[in-house]
Amino acid sequence: VTHSAFVIVGLGFIGGSLAARIRRHFPRVRLIGISRDRRKISAAKRRKWIDAGFTHPGKAFHQNPLDRKGRNPARWFVLICTPVDVTPKLISEVDRYAPSGTVVTDVGSTKQSIARWASRKRFRRIQFVGSHPLAGSHLSGAEHARADLFKGAYVFVTPTQVSKPEAVRRISSFWRKLGTRVLLLTPEKHDEIVSQISHLPHAVASALMHAVSSKMLRYGASGFLDTTRVAQGDPRLWTPIFLSNRGHLLKDLGRFESALQYFISALRGRRSSRVARFLRAAGRKRRESTSRRKESG
Amino acid sequence: VTHSAFVIVGLGFIGGSLAARIRRHFPRVRLIGISRDRRKISAAKRRKWIDAGFTHPGKAFHQNPLDRKGRNPARWFVLICTPVDVTPKLISEVDRYAPSGTVVTDVGSTKQSIARWASRKRFRRIQFVGSHPLAGSHLSGAEHARADLFKGAYVFVTPTQVSKPEAVRRISSFWRKLGTRVLLLTPEKHDEIVSQISHLPHAVASALMHAVSSKMLRYGASGFLDTTRVAQGDPRLWTPIFLSNRGHLLKDLGRFESALQYFISALRGRRSSRVARFLRAAGRKRRESTSRRKESG
Repeated sequence: VTHSAFVIVGLGFIGGSLAARIRRHFPRVRLIGISRDRRKISAAKRRKWIDAGFTHPGKAFHQNPLDRKGRNPARWFVLICTPVDVTPKLISEVDRYAPSGTVVTDVGSTKQSIARWASRKRFRRIQFVGSHPLAGSHLSGAEHARADLFKGAYVFVTPTQVSKPEAVRRISSFWRKLGTRVLLLTPEKHDEIVSQISHLPHAVASALMHAVSSKMLRYGASGFLDTTRVAQGDPRLWTPIFLSNRGHLLKDLGRFESALQYFISALRGRRSSRVARFLRAAGRKRRESTSRRKESG
Repeated sequence: VTHSAFVIVGLGFIGGSLAARIRRHFPRVRLIGISRDRRKISAAKRRKWIDAGFTHPGKAFHQNPLDRKGRNPARWFVLICTPVDVTPKLISEVDRYAPSGTVVTDVGSTKQSIARWASRKRFRRIQFVGSHPLAGSHLSGAEHARADLFKGAYVFVTPTQVSKPEAVRRISSFWRKLGTRVLLLTPEKHDEIVSQISHLPHAVASALMHAVSSKMLRYGASGFLDTTRVAQGDPRLWTPIFLSNRGHLLKDLGRFESALQYFISALRGRRSSRVARFLRAAGRKRRESTSRRKESG
């Protein structure tokens, strides 16, 4: 992997964290950053995340940069780290300018819509397979980026029937070398999972904030703050995520509503043993989820 | 306050943490623990939380214990740290055996039902005013108790029209000396607040656990784990809390459902600007709640 060049498109929280981590794990590769915002490029250079930066993806390949040993990079590896709604446009631009055989992946939180788009599209030069590192935060922006964000995280790699096995292998190998745990699964299965463990909790936490009166907020202790933390996610990232995983999320919101209705009717009817059973089953499941993570960690 | 004796009824997570903190802040007072479980009494003695322990509240006062300087305690102060559904029974027992003028408070998470009960009841010897330290955890049991649990926490003290001002003053002063921030408010207002910032998030987190498939749990990252943490609360404590705050909680569950319905219909109709607005307002409110806490902290 040393004889490669990395192009990171988008130098926000994820792009910045990835650049920092790649720099740490592959100190000799050439790292090129792309951002429309020149200040982000300057900041990324200052923090030594990138060797060079451009405001347009095409520029990265025009330069045909040498690696740090003075060789031309044999292999290009492009990571698209942008909001999911602009990812297709940027992949298309990379396809227009990158050398043949360039491997491209993204880090978006939904995979079905980008996979469908990629299957329909005939790329001229690139090989694209989607990824999704499960390492988010309610924080966003390059100022919060950190190299250890991905340490021990799951990374979903989502090949389709049109994916080239060699691209899947290189992308998986890249993530493993960064110290993550790679799981291959279909884009459909991926979106089903993240709807439940990420998008549904986010929607619920946001609704909770709407249900609470502003005057009460100052009394919220750790329990309240934990339960609603994800509601702080950037709406510019999360709105397109929710819309692109609309089908799964609507189904899961329905399941959630049924569960809540069960609780409400037990409480309304003062059915204390039903309330207790509901809480006990939820608590048991929650404790299992922690212990499973520990086992696999 | 040094010339007093404290009786703590219930040596679980809250009772144990309180004993440890009282010991630290009032090293010379006599501390008596009451628990039906002899092992909890032995454990509390071993950890030096209490000087003596009994399985029945009556015994605490029979002994008429000396303080550590050999004086009879001039004033008794009783803290009931049990699940809310057994608190009335234990207050009644304390009233039967305690010396006249003994001040009694509890630490239960709901205050309206205990206040109503206390207003109807004619105590023979004690003066009761309810308290609620906002310092819980999803953990329970004496093994997790710790002296710093209450540090900087809000404590609600909830007098009613029948409360003796002297009792309110002594209870508030006690909590302040433990390093907490005391707020006086009516039992009704108290229950309205905790329904929103504690009971509603708990019910929602539990429903979330029911909505998620067991197979997906292993992929839950920090966002999911934070959002559902409170669902681990002990159902034996929480079922009576929910039932005794049923009115407020049902109202708040209704508000929550309306907010969620708004989101669902925006998502179903692909109204992306509505989804974004919903998320933005929720995020802004959540960030304000953190900053207000910081300001007041």
